[in-house]
Amino acid sequence: MTRVDEIVAENAENVEKAEERVAGATGRALARALFTPAAVALVGASADEGKNTGRPLRFMRKHGYRGHIYPINPGRAEVMGLPAYPSVAALPETIDHAFVMVPGRHVPEVLEQCAARGASVVTVFSDGFAELGEAGMAAQQALAARAREFGVRLLGPNSIGVVDVHSGAILSVNAVLEADTLHAGGISVISQSGSMLGALLSRGAARGLGFAKLVSVGNEADIGVGELVDLLVDDSATEVILLFLETLRDAAVLGPALRRARAAGKPVLVYKLGRSAQGEALAQSHTGALAGNDAAVDAFLRKHGAMRVEMLETLLEAAPLARRYAAAIPSLDRHPRIAVVTTTGGGAATVVDRLGLADVEAVAPPTAFIAHMAARGVKIRQTPIIDLTLAATGAQYRDLVEQMLQSDWCDAVLCVAGSSAQFHPQLAVRPIIEASAVQGKPLLAFLAPEATQSLALLQEAGVPAFRTPESCADALACLFRAARTRDDAVAEPEPVAWPAPLPTHGDLSEFEAAAAFAALGVPIAPMALVGAQALRHAVPYPVVVKICSRDILHKTEVGGVEVGVRDNEELARAAARLLGNVARGAPEARIDGILVQRMEHRLLELMLGYRHDPLVGPMVMLSAGGITAELHRDVSLRPAPVSVAEAHEMIGEVRSTRLIRGFRGLPRGDVDALARAIADFSRLATVQGVRIDEAEINPLFVRAEGVVGVDCVLRLGAV
Amino acid sequence: MTRVDEIVAENAENVEKAEERVAGATGRALARALFTPAAVALVGASADEGKNTGRPLRFMRKHGYRGHIYPINPGRAEVMGLPAYPSVAALPETIDHAFVMVPGRHVPEVLEQCAARGASVVTVFSDGFAELGEAGMAAQQALAARAREFGVRLLGPNSIGVVDVHSGAILSVNAVLEADTLHAGGISVISQSGSMLGALLSRGAARGLGFAKLVSVGNEADIGVGELVDLLVDDSATEVILLFLETLRDAAVLGPALRRARAAGKPVLVYKLGRSAQGEALAQSHTGALAGNDAAVDAFLRKHGAMRVEMLETLLEAAPLARRYAAAIPSLDRHPRIAVVTTTGGGAATVVDRLGLADVEAVAPPTAFIAHMAARGVKIRQTPIIDLTLAATGAQYRDLVEQMLQSDWCDAVLCVAGSSAQFHPQLAVRPIIEASAVQGKPLLAFLAPEATQSLALLQEAGVPAFRTPESCADALACLFRAARTRDDAVAEPEPVAWPAPLPTHGDLSEFEAAAAFAALGVPIAPMALVGAQALRHAVPYPVVVKICSRDILHKTEVGGVEVGVRDNEELARAAARLLGNVARGAPEARIDGILVQRMEHRLLELMLGYRHDPLVGPMVMLSAGGITAELHRDVSLRPAPVSVAEAHEMIGEVRSTRLIRGFRGLPRGDVDALARAIADFSRLATVQGVRIDEAEINPLFVRAEGVVGVDCVLRLGAV
Repeated sequence: MTRVDEIVAENAENVEKAEERVAGATGRALARALFTPAAVALVGASADEGKNTGRPLRFMRKHGYRGHIYPINPGRAEVMGLPAYPSVAALPETIDHAFVMVPGRHVPEVLEQCAARGASVVTVFSDGFAELGEAGMAAQQALAARAREFGVRLLGPNSIGVVDVHSGAILSVNAVLEADTLHAGGISVISQSGSMLGALLSRGAARGLGFAKLVSVGNEADIGVGELVDLLVDDSATEVILLFLETLRDAAVLGPALRRARAAGKPVLVYKLGRSAQGEALAQSHTGALAGNDAAVDAFLRKHGAMRVEMLETLLEAAPLARRYAAAIPSLDRHPRIAVVTTTGGGAATVVDRLGLADVEAVAPPTAFIAHMAARGVKIRQTPIIDLTLAATGAQYRDLVEQMLQSDWCDAVLCVAGSSAQFHPQLAVRPIIEASAVQGKPLLAFLAPEATQSLALLQEAGVPAFRTPESCADALACLFRAARTRDDAVAEPEPVAWPAPLPTHGDLSEFEAAAAFAALGVPIAPMALVGAQALRHAVPYPVVVKICSRDILHKTEVGGVEVGVRDNEELARAAARLLGNVARGAPEARIDGILVQRMEHRLLELMLGYRHDPLVGPMVMLSAGGITAELHRDVSLRPAPVSVAEAHEMIGEVRSTRLIRGFRGLPRGDVDALARAIADFSRLATVQGVRIDEAEINPLFVRAEGVVGVDCVLRLGAV
Repeated sequence: MTRVDEIVAENAENVEKAEERVAGATGRALARALFTPAAVALVGASADEGKNTGRPLRFMRKHGYRGHIYPINPGRAEVMGLPAYPSVAALPETIDHAFVMVPGRHVPEVLEQCAARGASVVTVFSDGFAELGEAGMAAQQALAARAREFGVRLLGPNSIGVVDVHSGAILSVNAVLEADTLHAGGISVISQSGSMLGALLSRGAARGLGFAKLVSVGNEADIGVGELVDLLVDDSATEVILLFLETLRDAAVLGPALRRARAAGKPVLVYKLGRSAQGEALAQSHTGALAGNDAAVDAFLRKHGAMRVEMLETLLEAAPLARRYAAAIPSLDRHPRIAVVTTTGGGAATVVDRLGLADVEAVAPPTAFIAHMAARGVKIRQTPIIDLTLAATGAQYRDLVEQMLQSDWCDAVLCVAGSSAQFHPQLAVRPIIEASAVQGKPLLAFLAPEATQSLALLQEAGVPAFRTPESCADALACLFRAARTRDDAVAEPEPVAWPAPLPTHGDLSEFEAAAAFAALGVPIAPMALVGAQALRHAVPYPVVVKICSRDILHKTEVGGVEVGVRDNEELARAAARLLGNVARGAPEARIDGILVQRMEHRLLELMLGYRHDPLVGPMVMLSAGGITAELHRDVSLRPAPVSVAEAHEMIGEVRSTRLIRGFRGLPRGDVDALARAIADFSRLATVQGVRIDEAEINPLFVRAEGVVGVDCVLRLGAV
């Protein structure tokens, strides 16, 4: 099996597991053992408080864990005052969860003993597995297989652990848990980087954010990010879920989990490495993951309603904003409009400038609202930033914000506080906090100066507050972007049967590929496949003549195409030339015949592609035709299949399509037909009975009426 | 005069002023009166400590100002224990500097009195000037004129004041100065936003940064950002200069000042609003500035060696980095290479991912270096992030960093610290601080967790340290980008005389424009201007035939162009058709004759443009031809003139030129000839005797050998 095959197989298996789990009560039992075990074993627990392996016991005591703790240490009868046992097998009682800190080679044996002692979950801190390459991967797969065999779920290996802040169940060596108090709250974090879990917790604590569950997934040999999201949807302590991702290993499980989270009103915020090619390459080498495509992962996350933030700080700072407001944001067909109130014009402008980059508009109040406020004694001007520096009392500030929150000309209200936030926190933030009692649309604050106390007051009052303009703009943009997730994108169209006469594996010929696309409803130029000796056909002239062979991908390069053929006589000559060229240029190629295709006219050439992304599965891609796509990165990508509405969004994202959408008075193309063609083509993802690795219509011609594909490629994998 | 004329005139005047100043001792005297006055008047000082106008006196006492303070308040004999005077005229002694807080309408009178009492600088806090629109602008211009008349320099109006942290001379109402202590140091700030001055000071103080001078420029009626930068270059207390900009009002002064700062080894860091169109529009309306072009300002800042940061936080966090290392960074012909050492792979990856977006490479150590370190007992792997989590002692960490700082395979060393920075600050940062004694290349740190104490330790030791991965990457990218500023870009080529026979104002005909460009050395397609009745010419066929008229800009639209004309006979017929078309389509147009131009072939069409940006002056622009420039923003911009080396950089920035630089085996164009043509064309900026408002060669054909312009436009303004 290739790696792609493995991933596909794994995904299928993961889906099955997820289905099983949802069907039964496995999820609840797993969550209990994972997060709130009644009895835990610490395998390899040191009696030395300074050592990593001495930490979990110390942490659990410090943070009030009330279950049973069994240190396992063959060299001691006692660890930090608790009786120690030489092995898990020697335990007097059963356990729910074991945290394993012994060298990697001993883990399989420990696993077996844990199973025998009733553990449903084993968290493996030990390293020496997939992160080391091929041999480590084999050891890891063997470990996972054993766990399945024993009916034990595995977190890790190479996991820094799992923490339930509320109960103090800390099966982790993470140094951040040294903190004297852990602030319990509604934020849960799942991280593919163990050390970043600590960084996020410490940064969150400094911002007064409270946490519920923290999970380091390590190498995800068994329990993955997707399943954990799914568990947290059902966790009453979790209100918002943060993901720190380097790659995706279980997209097929994560997608449905993200949708469940969305339906449950629990926002999922994602920071993912890989915005740059350098970061992407790094994440791959770091995690041993397949080379996926960050753009594909991005489209996948967006489709399923996750909010991917741009900056690390946003991951934390956006949490209160998303928790409080995400569920209430409507999906807008226009740019979101933000009302901005400030006592620092320059400070507000730093946010508004960034919002502009994300197509979020700072909106000036309409005349009627200005009059409305004037009647209430508050004088404001018709500017996109409403500067109250000298003009308003606290009561007036509050009244203005309240009236804005109840008006219909803005979608959110942003308050930007100046120096008063530093020196008179109560005065500066009280109007904002009081106004926040008005429901309906997001209210948030950015504090221009260093103003720790004001931040804390806002935080305590539940008003989302930001320390940097960039994080503030990032969070606000994410909030509205996520609201645009289309519910129609989630409804899968009916499966399509593979047309019976076509091959079921390997590369298709152009004629066969065209037939496959046509079967989905995609318009393809009329064509006929004729024999070299029998050139009869019903295609109207002029025509294009091409060699038809599944073995020749680049027909032009071997002289396998002629255009502008005007009649039967020219056709005969052209066919002879093509066959001669191909006999010389590609003597081994199997020839199906000569393809006669109607010459088509067009306003614009585009390219429609379909790929199986190794991380997130089927993707459909619309791009500029020719080299423009590569030169100017003029591409839009979505998980396939897409709805017609999504296809329209894709068209809007490809800049070249402006040429057929009224740019400089140029003739308009049939954008509706284009959207239908994209949606139909994307149904390749629902085809039953074959595995489609790659497909392409290049070029796809857009005309004033209709679209038509004129060159078709389709490659099937082994089913 | 149009606004553009005004700006041009103002700039010229500013240059004169700057030259005067540099020539004499005016600068030193101005700096003394502005920053360290021996006697100051506080005009409109309140006795109420709670009022804005009561602040400067209170602040000066709090922060140890030792000069004479004269409160001016007609209603009181005493203010906060000091004798008060009814007016500046009533003062017993002369003053150096007055801070004016009375209503705007009284300012002219106060100004006159200040002049009479010897003040060399008057800082006007009062508003009611240009920020209010036309009438306010007139009042401001009158105020500035009076100040010139009296020989008094003006800061403001609408300035929140000026602060010398070292001496406690605080002529400012900025609330941030309420702080009990102001940390004195080497960072000076000039801000076009008064409130952001306070925000920056408070944020800097929280990071342990010390400040020298703080200036709010207000409306810049007289003293502007450029002149202040120039003063700070000579200020021994200032080591690095931060600018918070909304617009530019004195580019002609700022450019040379930035170059002086660079030569003096004082880095200038710039945060400028206007990255988005929304932010740009806002800054314009907020400052009453002309509609400039942020991209032009960006190119201007880069040319003169200023470091424009992307994020607000970077403005402060990059200051220690720039101060310590900017002068030592070499100009690289390749991407900068950074060695990354960490104890948190995920944390380091967050920076590396962002660095990738800025074309800064995380570089893996070469084999020889790995062997070198192995011999020293430090085992590292050949990965772009060197993870020492479990492998190294503090001494080994230090040794590794020291060896890197002395090696030649990297240009800087970035240390990313994990949880130890939070709980064992000394242990975590000591190796970094110790290694920082090694000179030669930048060493900087990012701390993944919240680690205030580690940040402070690094800060005290002078090691640049960052709180967010984005700010860290932003600063590092800026540092290396600024080092690329070409010294050759600064050497202005010789002035060029305007060719005598050509018109000296208004629109030129295409024939004249072509002659002007050819005079600069730009290759233009051979052409002849012939009369309608005498079509004799020596241009080889085939030719393009065009109507030649300074009144017709879009010749094609009126049927004024025919291509592929093959002989004299066809020429005669084409000329008749053109004249007929134009007689119908543009009957008023003055016709110079018929332009006969050789048909040229090409590999690629580009566009070469020249504009006078209202903020920063002459700009040269290279872009993709046709609509690609607009559709895909495929443009490069530089202040004109440019050197051939700069022209090569511009070519590299226009993605479409990849088509002639070896993309997919396509034939190569003559990039050297293109660079020469850009440089020659950009010398329009040095032409004497006319004012060139706009010029364009569109298209410019690039061929395998040479380039050739085939359509020329040139518009002159009144001199």
